[in-house]
Order: sequence, then structure tokens, then C-alpha cells
Amino acid sequence: MNVCVLTLFPELFGPFWDHGIIRRAVQGLKINPAVINIRDHAEGRHRVTDDRPYGGGCGMVMKPEPLAAALAEARKRVPSATTLLLSPQGKRFDQSLAQSLAVEEGLIFVCGRYEGVDERFVDQHIDAEISIGDFVLTGGELGAMVVIDAVARLIPGVLGNEDSAGSDTFSDGLVEHAHFTRPPTFGDAPVPGVLLSGNHQEIDRWRRETALIRTVLKRPDLLAQRDFSPQERAILEKWRRDIDRLIG
Amino acid sequence: MNVCVLTLFPELFGPFWDHGIIRRAVQGLKINPAVINIRDHAEGRHRVTDDRPYGGGCGMVMKPEPLAAALAEARKRVPSATTLLLSPQGKRFDQSLAQSLAVEEGLIFVCGRYEGVDERFVDQHIDAEISIGDFVLTGGELGAMVVIDAVARLIPGVLGNEDSAGSDTFSDGLVEHAHFTRPPTFGDAPVPGVLLSGNHQEIDRWRRETALIRTVLKRPDLLAQRDFSPQERAILEKWRRDIDRLIG
Repeated sequence: MNVCVLTLFPELFGPFWDHGIIRRAVQGLKINPAVINIRDHAEGRHRVTDDRPYGGGCGMVMKPEPLAAALAEARKRVPSATTLLLSPQGKRFDQSLAQSLAVEEGLIFVCGRYEGVDERFVDQHIDAEISIGDFVLTGGELGAMVVIDAVARLIPGVLGNEDSAGSDTFSDGLVEHAHFTRPPTFGDAPVPGVLLSGNHQEIDRWRRETALIRTVLKRPDLLAQRDFSPQERAILEKWRRDIDRLIG
Repeated sequence: MNVCVLTLFPELFGPFWDHGIIRRAVQGLKINPAVINIRDHAEGRHRVTDDRPYGGGCGMVMKPEPLAAALAEARKRVPSATTLLLSPQGKRFDQSLAQSLAVEEGLIFVCGRYEGVDERFVDQHIDAEISIGDFVLTGGELGAMVVIDAVARLIPGVLGNEDSAGSDTFSDGLVEHAHFTRPPTFGDAPVPGVLLSGNHQEIDRWRRETALIRTVLKRPDLLAQRDFSPQERAILEKWRRDIDRLIG
């Protein structure tokens, strides 16, 4: 996958390509990364990329021409790419959107700064606006990294078997079960005995049960639309009986 | 505000402190940043920070002791800090959570990697788990940067007047109005005439109306609980009449 980022701060991406899963994806030729400095495509001696807003008000707005010129350069490299703008008004990014982006041939990310981007550039050149959440960031760069990271690990061959994406939170609509590793006792807390039992059927049952418990406690919203399996229904009915017994 | 990050990849944060608003916050002494390498607090010649999960299964789990030792070091520097773990199971980060974190004296961010963190460390040492969204990332580092960026710009004195946070998307429950800057015509598209009129009351009315239109079109969920102002109600009623006229 060709991944091209348009930004005013290309240096922010230096260590990003160089660590962990992203580095593995780049080295394994699963991702071909490029960063284009929007400023290199601005005209004039000062290479100005922003200007005051029409109609007045605070802040600066990114000029459309340098963005369009930088995008033309990106499209020359990856003609078939989908062009995304990181914006708090965009479609909410989530794991299913990550999955659909992971099968694209190329992605171009436009990172806004300041108050925003001239609306005409958005109308004429952006395929989709994406938001990583209901909060305001200084610029689109962190959002682009978040999307690239989440997408990269879903490209086949990027994650080894040793850390497969299959058991991730959200991959089956539940949060993950709790994890424990050595030592057997930390502080005063032992590892749950079942995990030391060697009984894999029991361990699996315990993990499913704790994943369901954790989802009910931490993210009940994930369960609103869920079609519970008979096993999950049995777990929930057992809790109800337990609670009934407690409160009479 | 003291901001301390615990990570296995401290280099990821190098350019982050050095750009834009975050750099301004650091230079203006609004943020005092520190990054602690968890590996420096692991024991033995190999300074191992992860181990296989009890009960079997893929992936590695972060060991509790190096995390606890790194956290003890962080707490020595910032005794009153709140300790946050970035985790897909956490409380959803949003602008109102950013506002409440912006008044804390100190924040410690624990960045998990691999399959996750030993649950006992979480139980014993974490004040709150935070998630930036329903997607799975390689580690907590990008999430920590997102939270720090969103929080930093809300600390009084970090943003100048020229880019105040007051008119941001979400700050008044609507997405922002569209922005335009020079040139007056881009592609075939002129700037909306009202913005050139010099009539500030009209410009203000137009901006409020487009902010409401954009919210209805892009983020109707934001309006579900809204107590509309008389002005907004009038705009919505006008649209209803326009649509009634179109469809008879």
C-alpha cells in the first residue's frame, strides 16, 4: 500500500516510520511511505501556506493552491489513491473503517493546521473527511498516524502469528480478556488459578467470561446490538442469579 | 503541568515536543515534559519487559515490575499526578475529558505495547484507563500524544488570541463553520459573497447557519440532546419550509 502524507511538519513523521509494526510493514514492503511538505508547493519567496479568513475572525486558514499542488504531486506517485482529510467534522474512524481502508491500493492523508482548510479545496479534492474522535487537535498529523497505524496492522503479512489481530478488542465485538504474565504473585496479587491449571477448555471459558464481564463493566454500549451466543447468554443468566441472590 | 510518559519507545516523542503548539507550551513553561524508558527499569542483563501470558495464547504481555518501577520514578518527580493507561477498553477520550484533564497538576501516561499489560499492575497503579477510540493501535504512544495535544491547547496561555480554542468544533456543540481565504476564486469556485460584504452581523449569521447545516449533514448525533436557541430554531424551521416547498 502506498501511503502519502501531506503536511507542514514532515519531521513529525521521522520516528513514526522507524518503530515497531510500522517499521516492520515498511521493511517488509507492505507499506511504501512518502511525506510531502506542503510548503514546498507554495509560491513566492516566502512560500506562504496560510492566509487570513474571508469575513474576518481569529486564526489563519490554509490556502487552497499549495494544498492542490502538493496533492497533484502525491497523485502523480499514486494515481489510484483515496484522498483523506483529517478533520473533527469527518466520519468517525473505527475498526471497521480501518478494515475497509486496509484493502485500498493507496491512501493520501492531508493534514490541516491552524483554524482549518479553505473549503473549496475540500469540496474539489477530498474523497472523505475522517475524524479520530470528538476532540480538537493542533493539526491532522497525529490523526494521520493513528489511522496509518491501525490500518497497517490489518494488512495481511504485517503482523506475525505471534501477535495476530484476531483476538484484538473489537475484533469480535467485546473488549479483550485480562492478561497476566510472570511473576506468579505481584504485590499481594496472585495470578488467577485457572490460568495455571493447564486445562485449556477451562482457560478458554474463563477468558470468554472475563471478556464479557469487562465489556459489561467498561463498555456496555458495545453490547446494545449484540446477538449473544448461547454460551454468553448462559454466563449473563448466571450473573443475574448471583446478583438476585445478593440483593434478595 | 508536569507531563510524564512511560514508554518502551522514547524516541517516538522526540519531534512531538518540538513542534507547533506543544513546543510553544513547553517553551512557555506551561508544560514540563518528561519521558521515562520502561526498559531502564527492567532487571537483569537483558532488561526484559515482556513475557508469555499465563494460560497460553499468542502474543506477549508487559511484565508488572518494570512498569511499577518506572511509575515509582515518575511519581517521585510528580507526586500529585494522575496516572492514565492508554487502552482500547478505557473511558472514551473527548473534549470534555480534555477540559477536565487540563486543570490537573500533573499527568503520567503509561503506554502499553504487545497484547497488553499485566492486569495486576492496572488494578494496583492506574487511576484511569483512557481510549481515544474504537480502533486498535500498536501501542499507547500515539494515544498519549493525542491526549497531550488536546489537553495542552486548553491550558490557559498556551494558545494565543490568534488561534483561541473558543470557536473550535465541539466547544459549543456544533462543528465549525466553513473557512475561506484568498484567492477569491479557486478552480471555478468563488468565495461566498456574504464573506466579502463587510457586514459583520450578516457574516456572523451566515457562519452560525453554515455551522448548523454542517452539523446536521455531518454529525447529526451531536444535535440529539441540543437545546436549540431561538435563532437556531428559526433556521431549522426555515429549512423545513424550504423542503416542504420542494416535495409538496
